[in-house]
Amino acid sequence: MSHPLLKECCETFKEVQDTICKALERCDGGASFSEDIWFRPGETSGMDGGGGITKVIANGDVIEKGGVNFSYVHGTLPEDMSFHLTGKKDALPFHATGTSLVIHPRSPLVPTIHANIRFLYIDNTAWFGGGVDLTPYVLFEEDVIHFHNGLKKICDAHSPDYYPLFKKNCDEYFFIRHRGETRGVGGIFYDYLGKDHPTSLTAYKDFTFALGAGFNDLYIPIVEKRKGLTWTVDQKNFQLLRRGRYVEFNLLYDRGTLFGLKTSGRIESIFMSLPQHASWEYNYTPPPGSPEEKLSEIFKNPRNWVS
Amino acid sequence: MSHPLLKECCETFKEVQDTICKALERCDGGASFSEDIWFRPGETSGMDGGGGITKVIANGDVIEKGGVNFSYVHGTLPEDMSFHLTGKKDALPFHATGTSLVIHPRSPLVPTIHANIRFLYIDNTAWFGGGVDLTPYVLFEEDVIHFHNGLKKICDAHSPDYYPLFKKNCDEYFFIRHRGETRGVGGIFYDYLGKDHPTSLTAYKDFTFALGAGFNDLYIPIVEKRKGLTWTVDQKNFQLLRRGRYVEFNLLYDRGTLFGLKTSGRIESIFMSLPQHASWEYNYTPPPGSPEEKLSEIFKNPRNWVS
Repeated sequence: MSHPLLKECCETFKEVQDTICKALERCDGGASFSEDIWFRPGETSGMDGGGGITKVIANGDVIEKGGVNFSYVHGTLPEDMSFHLTGKKDALPFHATGTSLVIHPRSPLVPTIHANIRFLYIDNTAWFGGGVDLTPYVLFEEDVIHFHNGLKKICDAHSPDYYPLFKKNCDEYFFIRHRGETRGVGGIFYDYLGKDHPTSLTAYKDFTFALGAGFNDLYIPIVEKRKGLTWTVDQKNFQLLRRGRYVEFNLLYDRGTLFGLKTSGRIESIFMSLPQHASWEYNYTPPPGSPEEKLSEIFKNPRNWVS
Repeated sequence: MSHPLLKECCETFKEVQDTICKALERCDGGASFSEDIWFRPGETSGMDGGGGITKVIANGDVIEKGGVNFSYVHGTLPEDMSFHLTGKKDALPFHATGTSLVIHPRSPLVPTIHANIRFLYIDNTAWFGGGVDLTPYVLFEEDVIHFHNGLKKICDAHSPDYYPLFKKNCDEYFFIRHRGETRGVGGIFYDYLGKDHPTSLTAYKDFTFALGAGFNDLYIPIVEKRKGLTWTVDQKNFQLLRRGRYVEFNLLYDRGTLFGLKTSGRIESIFMSLPQHASWEYNYTPPPGSPEEKLSEIFKNPRNWVS
């Protein structure tokens, strides 16, 4: 029932978790990650086993709340999830492993970041998925360009088709439909890589591992550059409102959240992605001509950040 | 295509909105409601018309954020909503009118309240629904007893069966499944009243109108009693965390939110129910023996509040 790549994926994804946590701790300087090791109910529930390692950081000098989660879960999918993922209406056997993270810094000048790499094996079909996306609250164009250029470089080393396609996927995936806007300035997102091309699975694995290994260089330089700067009340308020939108996306649209809830995942690990603080204001519109308005325009009309 | 009760429901629900807003303004003493009148896109989209009046209050002396929304919308339901509401897979004609409100006071000593009364007419079948539920952050048992006794009195005037049944419905409906707990201390909730008994529609209308008319006496006395008291940082933090749960419920489970999003309702009116501020903390558990732990136990094991 297992898959030849499963063990390697688990090991590498766990390493990615460690490497990222170490870099974030160094960058924060104040707080460190605490660790929870958890297991799913197991055979008693008739269908599900596995577990994970959830690492969280809170009230740091730089990071207000963040989590990096590794998990390997297996069992039998609920029928609706099977249908959603494969088009088959049976309760299918599955294995899923991945590392995912969301980091919410305190300063509105330091963007929130999300990343995820995953390997799924459902009913004898295996595939990779992954993505990284950035959510700034104050626009520093050079930071966004650094981020997208870095992603393009990782992509291009594997295929020239990846960046344009996965950048577009990302803008489409992290789209808050009811608001008509993206969650942030995008990044890359891909799924089902290898589902129809099992012979290329090893190449997709290499790409996914490279994305995991490349995370620190995408994000840490941005944090280092902005973490010491002072911010304004307006910038903080806008950050809180945008974090409200982040919550809306995660609870209404995010596939990972849905997958976790449907497969009775560990709630605290699923909701690890939610910010410490979020706000909602009725009918908020950014003041005309403000930096917040400029950034909101970009959320409504995603840009190309690399030439 | 219209229903003989539709006009009367619209008029009464609008009156209920006005009466409640006036009482809340008097009670707040600082802020007053502002009003947005809005219309759905209409015939151009091929299927939907109607509109509403959204009244919001913010940054009051007592109320941090609140909204009272009246709407009357009609058109053709998306097929999945038709199926969900009637079991038929066609795109069905519908009329829906209702008044709904959520009030989030600033003080954690003053509970959040939600209320909703509604009349639906879908594919020649009409029914009433409604409910009121209370979410305290600090438990004053006498307030909860006042609230539930008031609801029982309104119910009993119409049928002795209502309160026990609708109280149970409420605990089941406002249940945050993934947390294994209710949103607050309940109240009453009912739906589809008259769907299978069209001859009783007038009686159900009277009951629904009585619930709308009774709202102020259920809530205002509690606010008056607690609004002047000082609160602690711990109480405020707990309020913010519970408001995070409120957001989780509304975005993941609430039928009204789902209905609004699926029928392309007005986003700002649908999300009016979200609090100004909400928090999430990884793996939060209330300190042993604390009032927060006691209240959390009640959320996990709903009590009977009337004898």
